[in-house]
Amino acid sequence: MSSDPLVIFTPSGKRGTFPVGTPILTAARQLGVDLDSACGGRGICSKCQVTPSYGEFPKHGVTVAEDALSEWNAVEQRYDDKRGLTPGRRLGCQATVQGDIVIDVPAESQVHKQVVRKRAEVRDITLNATISRVYVEVEEPDMHKPSGDLERLMTALKEATGHAEITIDTHLLRPLQPILRKGNWAVTAALHLGHKDSAPRIVALWPGYYEAPLFGLAVDLGSTTIAGHLCNLATGEVVASSGLMNPQIRFGEDLMSRVSYAMMNKGGDLEMTDAVRAGLNQLVIDIAKDAEIDKSQILDAVFVMNPVMHHLFLGIDPFELGQAPFALATSDALELPASALGLDIAPGTQAYLLPCIAGHVGADAAGVALSEAPDKSEDLVLVVDVGTNAEILLGDKDGVLACSSPTGPAFEGAQISAGQRAAPGAIERVEIDPVTKEPRFRVIGCEFWSDDEGFAAAVANTGITGICGSGIIEVIAEMRIAGLVDASGLIGSAEQTGTTRCFLDGRTNSYTLWEGDADQKAITVTNADIRAIQMAKAALYSGARLLMDKRGVDQVDRVVLAGAFGAHISAKHAMVLGMIPDCTLDKVTSAGNAAGTGARIALLNSKARGEIETLVRQIEKIETAVEPRFQEHFVNASALPNSSDPFPILRDVVALPEVSFNTGGGESSAAGGGRRRRRRG
Amino acid sequence: MSSDPLVIFTPSGKRGTFPVGTPILTAARQLGVDLDSACGGRGICSKCQVTPSYGEFPKHGVTVAEDALSEWNAVEQRYDDKRGLTPGRRLGCQATVQGDIVIDVPAESQVHKQVVRKRAEVRDITLNATISRVYVEVEEPDMHKPSGDLERLMTALKEATGHAEITIDTHLLRPLQPILRKGNWAVTAALHLGHKDSAPRIVALWPGYYEAPLFGLAVDLGSTTIAGHLCNLATGEVVASSGLMNPQIRFGEDLMSRVSYAMMNKGGDLEMTDAVRAGLNQLVIDIAKDAEIDKSQILDAVFVMNPVMHHLFLGIDPFELGQAPFALATSDALELPASALGLDIAPGTQAYLLPCIAGHVGADAAGVALSEAPDKSEDLVLVVDVGTNAEILLGDKDGVLACSSPTGPAFEGAQISAGQRAAPGAIERVEIDPVTKEPRFRVIGCEFWSDDEGFAAAVANTGITGICGSGIIEVIAEMRIAGLVDASGLIGSAEQTGTTRCFLDGRTNSYTLWEGDADQKAITVTNADIRAIQMAKAALYSGARLLMDKRGVDQVDRVVLAGAFGAHISAKHAMVLGMIPDCTLDKVTSAGNAAGTGARIALLNSKARGEIETLVRQIEKIETAVEPRFQEHFVNASALPNSSDPFPILRDVVALPEVSFNTGGGESSAAGGGRRRRRRG
Repeated sequence: MSSDPLVIFTPSGKRGTFPVGTPILTAARQLGVDLDSACGGRGICSKCQVTPSYGEFPKHGVTVAEDALSEWNAVEQRYDDKRGLTPGRRLGCQATVQGDIVIDVPAESQVHKQVVRKRAEVRDITLNATISRVYVEVEEPDMHKPSGDLERLMTALKEATGHAEITIDTHLLRPLQPILRKGNWAVTAALHLGHKDSAPRIVALWPGYYEAPLFGLAVDLGSTTIAGHLCNLATGEVVASSGLMNPQIRFGEDLMSRVSYAMMNKGGDLEMTDAVRAGLNQLVIDIAKDAEIDKSQILDAVFVMNPVMHHLFLGIDPFELGQAPFALATSDALELPASALGLDIAPGTQAYLLPCIAGHVGADAAGVALSEAPDKSEDLVLVVDVGTNAEILLGDKDGVLACSSPTGPAFEGAQISAGQRAAPGAIERVEIDPVTKEPRFRVIGCEFWSDDEGFAAAVANTGITGICGSGIIEVIAEMRIAGLVDASGLIGSAEQTGTTRCFLDGRTNSYTLWEGDADQKAITVTNADIRAIQMAKAALYSGARLLMDKRGVDQVDRVVLAGAFGAHISAKHAMVLGMIPDCTLDKVTSAGNAAGTGARIALLNSKARGEIETLVRQIEKIETAVEPRFQEHFVNASALPNSSDPFPILRDVVALPEVSFNTGGGESSAAGGGRRRRRRG
Repeated sequence: MSSDPLVIFTPSGKRGTFPVGTPILTAARQLGVDLDSACGGRGICSKCQVTPSYGEFPKHGVTVAEDALSEWNAVEQRYDDKRGLTPGRRLGCQATVQGDIVIDVPAESQVHKQVVRKRAEVRDITLNATISRVYVEVEEPDMHKPSGDLERLMTALKEATGHAEITIDTHLLRPLQPILRKGNWAVTAALHLGHKDSAPRIVALWPGYYEAPLFGLAVDLGSTTIAGHLCNLATGEVVASSGLMNPQIRFGEDLMSRVSYAMMNKGGDLEMTDAVRAGLNQLVIDIAKDAEIDKSQILDAVFVMNPVMHHLFLGIDPFELGQAPFALATSDALELPASALGLDIAPGTQAYLLPCIAGHVGADAAGVALSEAPDKSEDLVLVVDVGTNAEILLGDKDGVLACSSPTGPAFEGAQISAGQRAAPGAIERVEIDPVTKEPRFRVIGCEFWSDDEGFAAAVANTGITGICGSGIIEVIAEMRIAGLVDASGLIGSAEQTGTTRCFLDGRTNSYTLWEGDADQKAITVTNADIRAIQMAKAALYSGARLLMDKRGVDQVDRVVLAGAFGAHISAKHAMVLGMIPDCTLDKVTSAGNAAGTGARIALLNSKARGEIETLVRQIEKIETAVEPRFQEHFVNASALPNSSDPFPILRDVVALPEVSFNTGGGESSAAGGGRRRRRRG
């Protein structure tokens, strides 16, 4: 039995005996306790701060005396004087073991700390950044042992990190010598560790101990908007978020028009590549300004995007994605110099693009898969990222299927007569009184309902300008519940519905949602609007059904709606329209921008990169374009649910009136399905 | 015992039995016979051509029947029709074993063929290029198994080459899809294999089978001239050579002035970086034009140069090389994108820079070490690369020492009153009649001696413009042999020497080598010229002696003179001046541009890169600047050898007159050594 003092670390519970005089940091390392240190135990970085506990610890079976640690020393005093140390804290590299001791490692001193996620149902992010900061003292040059400054730096870094091989980014060859001398042969290196076998790479170098925080950028590169989150790589915290319109919009609203633009205009793809890269650099400027940091502190960048954006960002002509067999130029995850992508962040930064799942299921879907982790789910989960294309994942820990479904832009307010983007003035929520058939609504940017006092004054600035995607879902679902629309999707006439809000509008009927005023014309829902939504929801539903067929199930345990649109639609209304399979309402949740969250996970946890690459290889990809059952489902799904349809859960939620407005005049919902041209984008 | 047919390969002598129907290429691979193939046995590349032998082979103990191989087939016929096959040759991938057979593998069908070197004493170059050409057929895209075109290309390449991991140069992401489709899913890839553990990298890609030759560039980046050799990577042949003046000359003739320029002018180092890179791109244009190839066929580039040029080429300020401790920014070999060096050759090309040995002993000296291989020598060899700085290697298979000695530019004709670069019109050879003291000489660009009939007419064009480096060595040595100069380096007066060619010229005497004519003034050798050469040769000799001291020897077995200057000086004259240690004359050889040859070896044989990197680490580096014995040797070596000096071999070659012209007037050769400022460059 050893008579050496016992050291117990909390919260890990790891314990061991160590000779008197062993630094706490050394003990932690030997026991595999997750205690950070960036300066090699020189008392400079303070990352190894610990809180010793004194007194009786019956649970651990020890009593800790007051002198269980060495006395507060000059290095700690210097650090405390200079930067301040939280009372009760010691530097793990300075305090040495003198007797039995219990040491608490606070969260901020752990390398692999947990990053808080707002939603409870998703797994935690373990911080494991690709960038590691290492402080080293480098041997000075000696004429008798000639070797390059770089080689001596490498020797110091290899010793400090234990890596056998380290490389350096070419751009650092020039500033290397001045930095070493300015730091008086002490430097801080940022090492890009990578998640594969490749050797760590020095991507940045500062004289002396560099203590400013380092950041990474997680970007969701959407066809319409580009959204970026700037994360502190040491804490995982999102320090700034910024978004802007994708400047490619001037080449076409949807992806298919951009692919066409590239086909029709020589060099058009490169114009779009330049546009999106310029947009990203604007985002970098905005977000750095917002966070009050320098662009050169951004040392990592992770991207998710659909396949067309993926190719255009990489400078690859998306031509092949516009036609069968929709061949991706490259599908695997890519790690390449940010400079090769024209990104103006810290030189030497390696950008990481998540893998694409298939020709229509991009790195954004991979991001969703990483964030929502269907492969780790005990119950069967359907994850739907609703956009111009819907990316659909279905699975649990026994396997995951994926497909893409061409919903078209109706869900985003396009192809809708009064449709518009989600912006102030747009109607986003609707309720229709089932008796009076009178609507009330809310518009974005106003806290009142339209029948509240003060509504008129509150919307005076923005006006009431149109209906956004979630608004159109709600109004149509409410019309269906109120008996204004039948299961085939036809709006009834004033006579049939008993309200003059329904009126003949060409060959079919429309519904007046708002009468308009002196400045703005009325907002109506036309039968063509309902057709457009029917087509979109049929595509979405058919994709989900196809995966359920492949999996051999009729029902899913839960549904996750991802994407900005998914965050705003109400589960009830989505189910009334038959957008998603029958599912208990409280099992339908919204994941927000799950693709962007996936990018953030991959940014903060390099191990997650390997995980998503493995998962993407394992996902069973279903191409809807060549699945005959998809067309079958599509035709069947274009109708709206009826009370007689097999939706037991839906029937518990809402009664759907058994009405039929079909006058035999030829217009039928099923016919609409056949006429529609499938869109990609 | 097997009853399968016996297959014997010549010249390797490898043999084995194989089932009837085995292709010769397969048999060769199984036996480890070095038989090339780039198309995976599809009968496209013809690299596996072999010559079957028929009849009795008592030596091998077999009799080969006429039908020992399968019949000439359609694939061979097609190749013969299209490109022609040497009579008697078969395609190894098509001809199959039918009976006992003897197969000769011609040199051009070997991958690792020997490259002929002109000099007999040096080791052969084994061809083992860094670039490998691989033809593959790629699986077409399939909607049911979505994967990127790149990933399917990688699969095919991994299968064809056996490599577990392959990467691709970023620039190929864009052209990848059009190339695959143009080649109808068959492509030729150029793989950069590297000589370390790193995964092979696709650096070029062509549709179908690309049969045009691939080239590499070996460059000796000298301070004065840049010399490049373009080599066929499949044959090792030098197909074109080109040289140009280093455009940096406008910033300073010698390296020290360039370092000063960088110190005095902000951004001056980058100006010089731009200049040398522009010069290299001009060299590329010239050499590609000369060889009638496209720049994009140049897929490898290897560089040797001194440390200052090394840093300036890399874009590193050479400031630190101008002062003790002469710290290199980086000393190890570098492999980096040619594009990062601004080189306009095939995009994706990886450039290789040989390692530097020490702050004054550069990658050029490493090139000399690779070419002259002192580490493989059985006898002790002194290798001297004479230039502005002399790089000196001494060693044998038991170890190698290296140093650099600051000879200054006198050997190149600078600091000499009538000195000039080696160019038409310069005196390069001199003889002085020991009795009459009359000289005769030859000038560059003229085949006559000056006392030949026709000389005057022959030099009418160029004139007689000065003395080049080798000329000044010869004239001073001849003056010493003729008794016009004493051992201290003083020229005698007309009275002392008995010739009016010697005349009082200021405080010392000069010698008239040529009287001049109507157009050009006389060419004389002044006592200051002799002092300059004395200083240079003392530096060279002292460096060599210092290494000999370290090695503990008084004599070397042989001397190799490298460099352009070394190729032109006569061993006898060098020894009369005491430039090199006493050594049997026939053991003094010239290696020509050994540094450039080293670059060529590293270009053609990737294994040689690993070898020179290992050797450079092992070489014992001696810094002359801090060795007290160097100064001692230097003072002693400034005198010219005398017959009484311990040079037994020299005494056998030539009698040196015991004269002394010292009038006691204060001017003495030894004093000169102390006054001279050491120059680096």
